[in-house]
Amino acid sequence: MDVRTIVGTNVRRYRGEAGLSQEGLAELMGVDRAYVSGLELGRRNPTILTLWHTAMALKIRPSELLEFEGPLF
Amino acid sequence: MDVRTIVGTNVRRYRGEAGLSQEGLAELMGVDRAYVSGLELGRRNPTILTLWHTAMALKIRPSELLEFEGPLF
Repeated sequence: MDVRTIVGTNVRRYRGEAGLSQEGLAELMGVDRAYVSGLELGRRNPTILTLWHTAMALKIRPSELLEFEGPLF
Repeated sequence: MDVRTIVGTNVRRYRGEAGLSQEGLAELMGVDRAYVSGLELGRRNPTILTLWHTAMALKIRPSELLEFEGPLF
């Protein structure tokens, strides 16, 4: 399991639920659209501060961006 | 609320519950003790990959390192 893929999948899902485009989320976060796209594709390794800003923009708890189905080990 | 302080507080708590010293956790993570100390003091801004490795070393779900009491906003 790659945590970057987990976060990317969750960002895409919550962004959809919030009815936001990638452009819209990027604007809320103060980054460009390409960053959001890379994040959703699991190609970014954001810091916890960036993860926090992403969660605030999506109006969800930051821990929700790290949730995944299935066992830990 | 600063996410670095949230993570630091959680790392210290779960490390205690696991009965690990800072040295012991550092060894499991492959970092030096000073990094763990800085992390627990809220002075680090780790990436999600580092957060994942920390959670694996503590045998907890990564999302637990981002949990905090109280409302989001």
